[in-house]
Amino acid sequence: MNAIIITIGDEILNGDTVDTNSTFLALSLREIGVKIAEIRSIADDRQSILNALKEASNQADLIITTGGLGPTKDDLTKETVAEYCNVELIEDSELKNKIYSFYKKKNRLHSITKKMYTKPNGSTLLANDYGIAPCIWIKKNQTIIATLPGVPYEMKGITTEQLIPKILASFSLPTIRYHYFITSGAGETILAEKLQEIEENLPSHLSISYLPSFGGVKVRLSGMGNQAEIDSYFNKKIPEITKTLVDFTYSEDKDDNLAKAVAKLCVEKNISIATAESCTGGNIAKDITANAGSSAYFKGSIIAYSNEVKINLLGVNPDTIKNHGAVSEQTVIEMVKGTLSSLNVDFAVATSGIAGPDGGTDHKPVGTVCIAVGNQHNIQSKTFTFATQREKNIQLFTMAALHMLFHLIKEEK
Amino acid sequence: MNAIIITIGDEILNGDTVDTNSTFLALSLREIGVKIAEIRSIADDRQSILNALKEASNQADLIITTGGLGPTKDDLTKETVAEYCNVELIEDSELKNKIYSFYKKKNRLHSITKKMYTKPNGSTLLANDYGIAPCIWIKKNQTIIATLPGVPYEMKGITTEQLIPKILASFSLPTIRYHYFITSGAGETILAEKLQEIEENLPSHLSISYLPSFGGVKVRLSGMGNQAEIDSYFNKKIPEITKTLVDFTYSEDKDDNLAKAVAKLCVEKNISIATAESCTGGNIAKDITANAGSSAYFKGSIIAYSNEVKINLLGVNPDTIKNHGAVSEQTVIEMVKGTLSSLNVDFAVATSGIAGPDGGTDHKPVGTVCIAVGNQHNIQSKTFTFATQREKNIQLFTMAALHMLFHLIKEEK
Repeated sequence: MNAIIITIGDEILNGDTVDTNSTFLALSLREIGVKIAEIRSIADDRQSILNALKEASNQADLIITTGGLGPTKDDLTKETVAEYCNVELIEDSELKNKIYSFYKKKNRLHSITKKMYTKPNGSTLLANDYGIAPCIWIKKNQTIIATLPGVPYEMKGITTEQLIPKILASFSLPTIRYHYFITSGAGETILAEKLQEIEENLPSHLSISYLPSFGGVKVRLSGMGNQAEIDSYFNKKIPEITKTLVDFTYSEDKDDNLAKAVAKLCVEKNISIATAESCTGGNIAKDITANAGSSAYFKGSIIAYSNEVKINLLGVNPDTIKNHGAVSEQTVIEMVKGTLSSLNVDFAVATSGIAGPDGGTDHKPVGTVCIAVGNQHNIQSKTFTFATQREKNIQLFTMAALHMLFHLIKEEK
Repeated sequence: MNAIIITIGDEILNGDTVDTNSTFLALSLREIGVKIAEIRSIADDRQSILNALKEASNQADLIITTGGLGPTKDDLTKETVAEYCNVELIEDSELKNKIYSFYKKKNRLHSITKKMYTKPNGSTLLANDYGIAPCIWIKKNQTIIATLPGVPYEMKGITTEQLIPKILASFSLPTIRYHYFITSGAGETILAEKLQEIEENLPSHLSISYLPSFGGVKVRLSGMGNQAEIDSYFNKKIPEITKTLVDFTYSEDKDDNLAKAVAKLCVEKNISIATAESCTGGNIAKDITANAGSSAYFKGSIIAYSNEVKINLLGVNPDTIKNHGAVSEQTVIEMVKGTLSSLNVDFAVATSGIAGPDGGTDHKPVGTVCIAVGNQHNIQSKTFTFATQREKNIQLFTMAALHMLFHLIKEEK
């Protein structure tokens, strides 16, 4: 089954916005076995929308649009879909009630226009718990057209909660199964070498993909075809891969990241953590606190960007910095000790490095980072060199620190 | 003049790659007055390429493709462009020499195939100083087709150095000029109201656009047409807009963000800063330290996620928290005082709020944040309510804090 994504609006054509919506949709649809035949970005005008709908319906069973569902006269998606389907726009009483209660709260009832609560005759609406954009699902000849808002967080929520279940209920899709191994600490090449033998012995309808992302690789086992056969292969292959990747896999949930995996461990083991960050400048703390509920285990951090702060707030010995440098395993070990005592936590992680572009030396080039993790009984430290750009370096330093923290907490009682 | 961008390959359709190539091309072309009518991502197959070329040439004076120019048999762009233009592929001796010297260096002369050094008859080649992909420029009827490689750094280099000059030499383009006002502290609606009178009195070839991004809006004045006339209008209008947006504009450099603007001020005024963050969890520090050279003015932070840390490390009075709550202007004011003294800096900013999804009350709902900024003589505090999701709340809190910090530093001697 083929789908085409059409994003409507000028932001992408102008280069003002990167089209991450289509990436999200493509990934979500692939998960359920839908093939994306094309992604188009077009202008917010009637003729462009009509052309794109017409051309897309020659190739696709499903057309998904994003954008152009707002309340202004520049928003033309709903109207043009109705025109393309040759149907009238009719009032929808449920949508009308929703709009009225939404605008009443904002004390802006005077802003309501009829345009806001109409839908093409014959369409159904996908529930939108994120806003007031009307998400239409309508059939024209053999093609379904679904409209989503362009605001990413609305679009994502509606896709996951409404669109995907609706597609699964409406189309007969091939059985497809995925299993993910979310890894950190090794690149694609190393993982592929480790899995070479398993990969060579897979039947043709199973495959392994390596999806690199910052600081890690998602290894995906995919199977397509007969359900019972796929299940039987998955039951055999998953334990083999699990065993092979034991030092690298921190989760088998594809939406996990290292900070979430650390969070789960902290909650499970009822421990508290803190960070002491020099070169990562708060990025580790930011990743940890991105998770709801992080106050249950994360007490705080000392961002010790200057040596003065390392000495005064973390109790690093000035001689350590003098003798070994601020970027040294000795310094980060003392930073961990200082954090454990001044923030009174079970585990701490500390970083000191050279993110660049300046500050590198022959001995410690840009991209060098020293990381220590530990508790009262056990402190481990390592030095890494990731020679890349500042922004990437900071992300890679952060991932390496979380990787070490995860594995230490996991191994400790 | 209209252009259409066609990206060829499966990575974008699979959702494995975000299409940043098109964003770069769209921005580069807009700068010289080329309008992008459409961006399409299609699969690497003959029929899809032929369809897209045919459909695009109905609308566009220029078609730019990226991808599918490699040496393998899966790379079909060059062959299909030749087929579409109804011409043969012919050997290009310059390209042939280049390929031979390239592969000779790699000791891989045996890998050369004729496919590598052919071009469609009647085409010219854009010089490619970044690799061996043949960048074709060919005319079919009234439309130019230009092919670029998909590898971003090659594509970018060739676009800037070859494609843009070639377009400028081949098409008669309008003069275009932009001026940006990078603002924070007010939404699109408020800014548009303030600029309403100016906007209504603009001549038809000048326009104002509002480009919202997290925590701010880029206001863009655009002019197209006769150079002298545009310049004369810009000279009049820029000072008017500058005056109207004085409370909101922090930069007129389109690539600036608030953290960079704070950085420039700190360097210019030779002052040091630090942050004390509860709900923002290090995100402000992370934004500040994303800038190279931040160690010149940023000393560090205390991420006081728990009350214990607020009391022990920032010297917040436990009674303040008891009487007013951790999320209160009283608490953040004490956090600023504690930061100024324990980190020994000129200016500090502190945040405490409820990022959500839990922890809200009727009185202080999710999205509430108290922010204080100050130095030894002057501390200001404010409470904001941004009722949205955790991730966005944290970003909006961060932008509000940087906005307050920027304006306080700017106004202080």
